[in-house]
Amino acid sequence: MQSFIGQHILSVNQFDREAVERVFAVADTMAPYANREKRTTVLQGAILGNLFFEASTRTRVSFGTAFNLLGGEVRETTGMSTSALAKGESLYDTARVLSGYSDIIAMRHPHAGSVSEFSEGSRVPVINGGDGANEHPTQALLDLYTIAKERASYGQSIDKLHIAMIGDLKFGRTVHSLAKMLTHFDNVKFTLISPTELSMPQSICDIIENKGHQLVISDQLEGIVEADICYQTRIQEERFPSQEEANKYRGKFRLNQQIYTQHFKSQTVIMHPLPRDSRAEANELDNDLNKNPNLAIFRQTDNGVLVRMALFALTLGVADKISDFDRPVHWYSNKSN
Amino acid sequence: MQSFIGQHILSVNQFDREAVERVFAVADTMAPYANREKRTTVLQGAILGNLFFEASTRTRVSFGTAFNLLGGEVRETTGMSTSALAKGESLYDTARVLSGYSDIIAMRHPHAGSVSEFSEGSRVPVINGGDGANEHPTQALLDLYTIAKERASYGQSIDKLHIAMIGDLKFGRTVHSLAKMLTHFDNVKFTLISPTELSMPQSICDIIENKGHQLVISDQLEGIVEADICYQTRIQEERFPSQEEANKYRGKFRLNQQIYTQHFKSQTVIMHPLPRDSRAEANELDNDLNKNPNLAIFRQTDNGVLVRMALFALTLGVADKISDFDRPVHWYSNKSN
Amino acid sequence: MQSFIGQHILSVNQFDREAVERVFAVADTMAPYANREKRTTVLQGAILGNLFFEASTRTRVSFGTAFNLLGGEVRETTGMSTSALAKGESLYDTARVLSGYSDIIAMRHPHAGSVSEFSEGSRVPVINGGDGANEHPTQALLDLYTIAKERASYGQSIDKLHIAMIGDLKFGRTVHSLAKMLTHFDNVKFTLISPTELSMPQSICDIIENKGHQLVISDQLEGIVEADICYQTRIQEERFPSQEEANKYRGKFRLNQQIYTQHFKSQTVIMHPLPRDSRAEANELDNDLNKNPNLAIFRQTDNGVLVRMALFALTLGVADKISDFDRPVHWYSNKSN
Repeated sequence: MQSFIGQHILSVNQFDREAVERVFAVADTMAPYANREKRTTVLQGAILGNLFFEASTRTRVSFGTAFNLLGGEVRETTGMSTSALAKGESLYDTARVLSGYSDIIAMRHPHAGSVSEFSEGSRVPVINGGDGANEHPTQALLDLYTIAKERASYGQSIDKLHIAMIGDLKFGRTVHSLAKMLTHFDNVKFTLISPTELSMPQSICDIIENKGHQLVISDQLEGIVEADICYQTRIQEERFPSQEEANKYRGKFRLNQQIYTQHFKSQTVIMHPLPRDSRAEANELDNDLNKNPNLAIFRQTDNGVLVRMALFALTLGVADKISDFDRPVHWYSNKSN
Repeated sequence: MQSFIGQHILSVNQFDREAVERVFAVADTMAPYANREKRTTVLQGAILGNLFFEASTRTRVSFGTAFNLLGGEVRETTGMSTSALAKGESLYDTARVLSGYSDIIAMRHPHAGSVSEFSEGSRVPVINGGDGANEHPTQALLDLYTIAKERASYGQSIDKLHIAMIGDLKFGRTVHSLAKMLTHFDNVKFTLISPTELSMPQSICDIIENKGHQLVISDQLEGIVEADICYQTRIQEERFPSQEEANKYRGKFRLNQQIYTQHFKSQTVIMHPLPRDSRAEANELDNDLNKNPNLAIFRQTDNGVLVRMALFALTLGVADKISDFDRPVHWYSNKSN
Repeated sequence: MQSFIGQHILSVNQFDREAVERVFAVADTMAPYANREKRTTVLQGAILGNLFFEASTRTRVSFGTAFNLLGGEVRETTGMSTSALAKGESLYDTARVLSGYSDIIAMRHPHAGSVSEFSEGSRVPVINGGDGANEHPTQALLDLYTIAKERASYGQSIDKLHIAMIGDLKFGRTVHSLAKMLTHFDNVKFTLISPTELSMPQSICDIIENKGHQLVISDQLEGIVEADICYQTRIQEERFPSQEEANKYRGKFRLNQQIYTQHFKSQTVIMHPLPRDSRAEANELDNDLNKNPNLAIFRQTDNGVLVRMALFALTLGVADKISDFDRPVHWYSNKSN
């Protein structure tokens, strides 16, 4: 990816190491704005079309907030039942029309490939906010950015990372994308822990090994004691043939403070794509971990805002102009604490 | 309540007389902005998270408008079915995540206690926009502020007020909160008129009497002739065992211009929490009262914007800086007429 | 219509030739803002109440975008099920309350006459965004504005236009309104092509003929070879007694590049109110026309933004002040290409 200006962001496959590092460098510059140390008006008057044909409150609000933090306005739509798409309009037509109403578009849609198809009709850059089982590149970027920042706090880089991915590795779009992105770095060790039926697809394992990274596959939690990052996934009930199977699975792969203390080294960072199911019968990540300073799950969602700000700034060509439009913050905030 | 800065606004119980008077003093300063005599950019760049997990068009729009009038941006969500809460996420997690997307949150939720629980996870101030049968403090404040302004137009204060509350006093959250707030003032007379089965809870009556106010209880409209304020409530069909019971009730407690002329003194101000049911079979407040200058129901909703502006300004610590950011209004408006 | 300031825009019947030309002159001045050559802050701080009691993504977003492009903020509501209207509130009450929350309102509602009734309670100007089968004046204006611009690109005016209207002319609100507007100009020729059961209402035909325009009625596509504009309408399945009838209809009135080449002169402009149904079984306007430079359907929706900007500017009295608040655009855009 040579330049981001005017480009669509559709897939993690667009990102090589250089592109990732460019996004992260820009994301770093966004922290003072998100932390309310200052604000910028660089995109004052610009309009984001925030098109969520599939509902997703937090992703939608995160995109909208990121655009507001750059000074821009947001026009939104949620759901598909009342849209012209439901009346048989093509994605091409929808894109031609709606791209006339904004400067950039963030879009989620339940069908794989839909955002890419939409982008062909769009006259403005389109950022994929999730297209079904296919891609959710901003989630992968915020996960990787979180890893980079957590590692940096210990004076380390992503190179030589040991990451354990736990749970449903077969259907979890998140871990597939993250794994692919990590292969751009050097000497990463992947410990993939899941029940055999939910193991990482061979295609992803091949990419990991072809790029010379270390790969350990297990169906036991015990293997992860040396991991720097523990990436836990969401338990999806519907993947199991019966309630009994699901319960058995949970018994083996849930995480709480006791298991953490028993199996992990003291600095292992815990991540999760959220939301986590807090009901006692699910509980893939127990609330008793909330006091653990290595629980990075809320730093992940905060970082999502920074990454989305960076992508907006890069695709709209203002990444180097942000601070030219700095303004003071007049109101109370404790976000920088 | 010593200072509002950075505080959550969850309950009317947080407000003593001094706090109420502080809110109202700030609300008074908001009128020129709401009336479009001028505008302010004090919160330009700030973001309100307007989280309505239970739909309520007017309360939601009123909060959003109040924030826009201070110069800020609004990110919104409506409904709960598509939210992470529906997937088992805890209110704590939702709060931790969503509070990363805004500077302040206004929240409505169908369950009693939910907003308070949410506030414990929030890293920004939370204003309760209604949590089920529990609390709706901004409604109570706008009602009380309306009373204060109506009284002031006759050169009087809230002290020595005679208020008649009419209708469903058992389930009406609004009248409970308003009654509690009024007890902070001196020598208020409460005339509570309802069918016996829908009378004011004893706990509220106790507060009124323990603070030394006068209390009259009746099931006849006739008692209210001397009231300064007549606070009519919404008739809720589902409270009655049968249609016949409901009709009987309505026959006794509806209000129209003829009944007003017959039973009230000429300056009695009519209030209602809105919406009122305009269908002929309901009709707790007849449309023929629309020409009565003492019908204050639309002044109530207008005052709601001022009160919400005041709460935003106070909790974000900008109440004394508003006019430093004054700008002229360039467009046509007849709001100040 | 002498002055637009403070007026409601409810019906095409409000517009004579002079009013239309005033709107279009202002719409012309909006192009540099929509094309991102510059931006304006003239309505910074103003609030649009974008009230879509009936969902319509593109009309809603178009109104919102138009207001944002003038520098203003947008507060929105979509759907009616959760609104106070569903609880029996009158349109008058809804209007009194919601007009306290904005400077101007754009409103769509499923019931004919509802927007006009609402406007009587509103304390701010109301623009009709469609009230059921009744009126959708901004659609008619954007259609007519598109005709004016397409004609101008060939050095012609609307006078002496030959327009063919095709398809469901009985139930199509769009073609009724457009026909009425066109009668304000001189020597227009109308060729109305539809199955007999879906022909243009006699009342509209009377207006056309009483104003001295030429009228040709046909049930054959062949008649339109000389038309300057071909206005194709949406095929609405539910108008036909059976699937078989619908298919027969489509066989006769669909349009694709082959039919275009065969029946039209080379400069005939193709219009459609959108959305078009792209499914093979419907296909009133084939995708193979997308490469035809005379396909104006996406220019129509782009023009819709300009027309709505013009109406906001005129009703709020800022049409002559826009450029006093010009600001540069800092971000990447190819909209002016």
